[in-house]
Amino acid sequence: MTHRVDLVADLGEGFGAYTMGDDEALLDVLTSANIACGFHAGDPRIMDATVRHCVRRGVAVGAHPSFPDLVGFGRRAMDLTPDEVRTDVLYQVGALQAFAVSHGTRVRHVAPHGRLGNLVATRPDYAAAVADAVASLDPALIVLAQDGELADAARARGLRVGIVGIADRAYRDDGTLVPRSEPGAVIHEEKEIAERTIRMVTEGVIRSVGGRDIPVDCDTVLLHGDTQGAISLAHRVREDLLAADVEITALADVLDGRAA
Amino acid sequence: MTHRVDLVADLGEGFGAYTMGDDEALLDVLTSANIACGFHAGDPRIMDATVRHCVRRGVAVGAHPSFPDLVGFGRRAMDLTPDEVRTDVLYQVGALQAFAVSHGTRVRHVAPHGRLGNLVATRPDYAAAVADAVASLDPALIVLAQDGELADAARARGLRVGIVGIADRAYRDDGTLVPRSEPGAVIHEEKEIAERTIRMVTEGVIRSVGGRDIPVDCDTVLLHGDTQGAISLAHRVREDLLAADVEITALADVLDGRAA
Amino acid sequence: MTHRVDLVADLGEGFGAYTMGDDEALLDVLTSANIACGFHAGDPRIMDATVRHCVRRGVAVGAHPSFPDLVGFGRRAMDLTPDEVRTDVLYQVGALQAFAVSHGTRVRHVAPHGRLGNLVATRPDYAAAVADAVASLDPALIVLAQDGELADAARARGLRVGIVGIADRAYRDDGTLVPRSEPGAVIHEEKEIAERTIRMVTEGVIRSVGGRDIPVDCDTVLLHGDTQGAISLAHRVREDLLAADVEITALADVLDGRAA
Amino acid sequence: MTHRVDLVADLGEGFGAYTMGDDEALLDVLTSANIACGFHAGDPRIMDATVRHCVRRGVAVGAHPSFPDLVGFGRRAMDLTPDEVRTDVLYQVGALQAFAVSHGTRVRHVAPHGRLGNLVATRPDYAAAVADAVASLDPALIVLAQDGELADAARARGLRVGIVGIADRAYRDDGTLVPRSEPGAVIHEEKEIAERTIRMVTEGVIRSVGGRDIPVDCDTVLLHGDTQGAISLAHRVREDLLAADVEITALADVLDGRAA
Repeated sequence: MTHRVDLVADLGEGFGAYTMGDDEALLDVLTSANIACGFHAGDPRIMDATVRHCVRRGVAVGAHPSFPDLVGFGRRAMDLTPDEVRTDVLYQVGALQAFAVSHGTRVRHVAPHGRLGNLVATRPDYAAAVADAVASLDPALIVLAQDGELADAARARGLRVGIVGIADRAYRDDGTLVPRSEPGAVIHEEKEIAERTIRMVTEGVIRSVGGRDIPVDCDTVLLHGDTQGAISLAHRVREDLLAADVEITALADVLDGRAA
Repeated sequence: MTHRVDLVADLGEGFGAYTMGDDEALLDVLTSANIACGFHAGDPRIMDATVRHCVRRGVAVGAHPSFPDLVGFGRRAMDLTPDEVRTDVLYQVGALQAFAVSHGTRVRHVAPHGRLGNLVATRPDYAAAVADAVASLDPALIVLAQDGELADAARARGLRVGIVGIADRAYRDDGTLVPRSEPGAVIHEEKEIAERTIRMVTEGVIRSVGGRDIPVDCDTVLLHGDTQGAISLAHRVREDLLAADVEITALADVLDGRAA
Repeated sequence: MTHRVDLVADLGEGFGAYTMGDDEALLDVLTSANIACGFHAGDPRIMDATVRHCVRRGVAVGAHPSFPDLVGFGRRAMDLTPDEVRTDVLYQVGALQAFAVSHGTRVRHVAPHGRLGNLVATRPDYAAAVADAVASLDPALIVLAQDGELADAARARGLRVGIVGIADRAYRDDGTLVPRSEPGAVIHEEKEIAERTIRMVTEGVIRSVGGRDIPVDCDTVLLHGDTQGAISLAHRVREDLLAADVEITALADVLDGRAA
Repeated sequence: MTHRVDLVADLGEGFGAYTMGDDEALLDVLTSANIACGFHAGDPRIMDATVRHCVRRGVAVGAHPSFPDLVGFGRRAMDLTPDEVRTDVLYQVGALQAFAVSHGTRVRHVAPHGRLGNLVATRPDYAAAVADAVASLDPALIVLAQDGELADAARARGLRVGIVGIADRAYRDDGTLVPRSEPGAVIHEEKEIAERTIRMVTEGVIRSVGGRDIPVDCDTVLLHGDTQGAISLAHRVREDLLAADVEITALADVLDGRAA
């Protein structure tokens, strides 16, 4: 059996005169993109250009909605009501859909950003709010998430879910991530990250901080483009996966393969 | 032959804790709504609620995109590039589409707000930018405008155009509006406004400041809801139109009737 | 001994084209104002006009800094670092100082708004952040707060503290407010509110929800102007206080009287 | 007679997670800084850190107020009323003053940014608005400007004016800059820029595009830090000025020397 996986990263996270990350370099590697929608980063010009570049490169377009916190880059918790979460997500995904349609494509997935992305994994009310927004907008949208509340809520609404594997983050025995505030939360060694990625994709396991091989679904591997090292790592991960006979393809194809 | 006309007003122009206008009262009168999209007014909760109310009342949903100027309510000119106008419009209309879809309807028209709405009548570059945005997003969208550059640009792209008649504004002999900065630009007398509306809709003319009956298309009549007097006027205009055997129906039907 | 008390309310809480509350009517009653600084409400024009009106009426100017959350009106908790709180407060108070100076007065007090105002009562880190900001900016500034962490932190830095009494809110036996989410948190009866105010100011006690008379300092009474009833109540409170021989005077004078 | 000149650049133009320019490197060269105040760039953390760094390095703090246009970086014209300009400037300068005071210094000058900076040179109403704001806030503030309407308006109100020389921009025979939209507007050759700077400072002339030596006051030289080349040029300009026996000192000292 051939293993399939999607490669995804956050794109379009500049704002106005500001740039962030090397989107151009990442587009050589990715099959999907989480595109900022203006609440934590991104603006209409950047969204337009990012979608255009994705279309040209055959990279699937996904929405990366956030708490409304530009100065905090969406990394700060905000105590929103579920209805505020639902409507903020609808607004942002809809805005991105306009750029997708105008470039002849469509938004394929939704991946909550930053602190919202963390909270939907553990807060059922926020998970339901995001899943409701997505289901009411387009049932063909894939929800990209870690295992957790959002993945469950999406499946309960009949939405497809793509599980993201994060090879440069330490996992606990229960499959949750070690919080960034704890030592050892982030893995920096390129070789180790590449090897963890290969095992996640080909064996379906990752070594936890407790030293156990825990099962981990991995429909898509999260890469980064914010440093030169990250770009180099992204290329290496891609090459190592190909060398391991993994087929790298967009998330919808990965999920279709799972279903087959 | 029966005359048909649409009744439209700007809705959803509150923001956060702030309200503006009496949307509830207006919804009794309207057949279409220009809904603020967050750049001059409106926020995701207000957009969601406004679309929901429109759907319940059978009022057609339209987008009311603006320059990005919340503190200036979109009334101040900004020197944007045409590409900035195009992408800002895409972003805003797309955001509203999400709420429309989630409530089982779709956005029917686009009507630029405030200063942007003024400038697209006379600036070919801005007119082209708005028409390009609309055409690339959904060719079924109607462009709501006064006669002018935007109407021409929209027609040139195969888009349908609904011409808005503004009975409480003075027209010059050439069919343009007297600017608000000049005396007599705004007509305040309820009876006069109602009579001008009837003539626009049933005779296709309006009396100019020069005293001439000039031709004016009027597919939709712009009403207001920002004062008690405005609500009262809106009801009177509706009743007078019905008394004159005018059929009041949504903009798409008005245009279908024109085409028939 | 004559009792003295300040009367304060939140002013300048409009934004752009939006208005909130009847500032004009409140200015007849107040001796101090908490003026919004642009983060939850207020903009440079409104701040300028509000300070000008305060100066003309002899109302002392205070700053009402908030979390940066315009669409949420500063009512939503945000997980800021203490340094973010400190610098956000400096920014906002500084902005208001400019209007004060340009109108020949100065900012007399600082009263955190909304959710920030709630949190500084119980979070020592936020309390220290606000007190540090104020102390580093102008040691003559009075901190307006309920009893709690901010009051303690301010006193520890040598700042004067004005304790605010909130007669339309229910107090627990321990002197804290019943949260708005609980029944009975807000008292609506005008006569009851007025009587509670008189007792707070003249006897230094308020009846708790447990039925006990608990001690409460009250250097300033918080009034509202968001409804016609609120304005009417504000006038009544003022008249009842005067009838009880209470001297109504600005916060600095109240505190000077305490010290004497 | 010893020539004196100030060296100034725009600092603190990042926002949230975004950085712009190499402020650290520039601080080795400058005697004054134009610090962004949050309307086109800058946020409370960045303002706080930038002022702190300036104080440590002995660099004089100046305010760099802008049109309210974060996504456009203050580079787009906006049709504000003079009162909107005046109050926006007060707000921004006041906010920066808070950070200056909290770090034991004060704001020394005000230099309008971007498109506002262009327009105040030619629009008497905007020039008066900025000069009124500055004069009402602190008559000791220096207005930093090119020759033009703002410089005249500031002098008419008794304010001191520092004229900025821009050696990398082409001057017309009448002393105005060649607009960026025209070819040859910007000079890129490091050697040429350095030589033009020396002549401006030591001879009081600059070679116009028409080939004439036109008189130019130059109290301060505008440097940049947005590229590695700009930093290198800034160092060269400083060294060449020192080699030409020019005393490099903060703007207030330069103006004191003029007055003496």
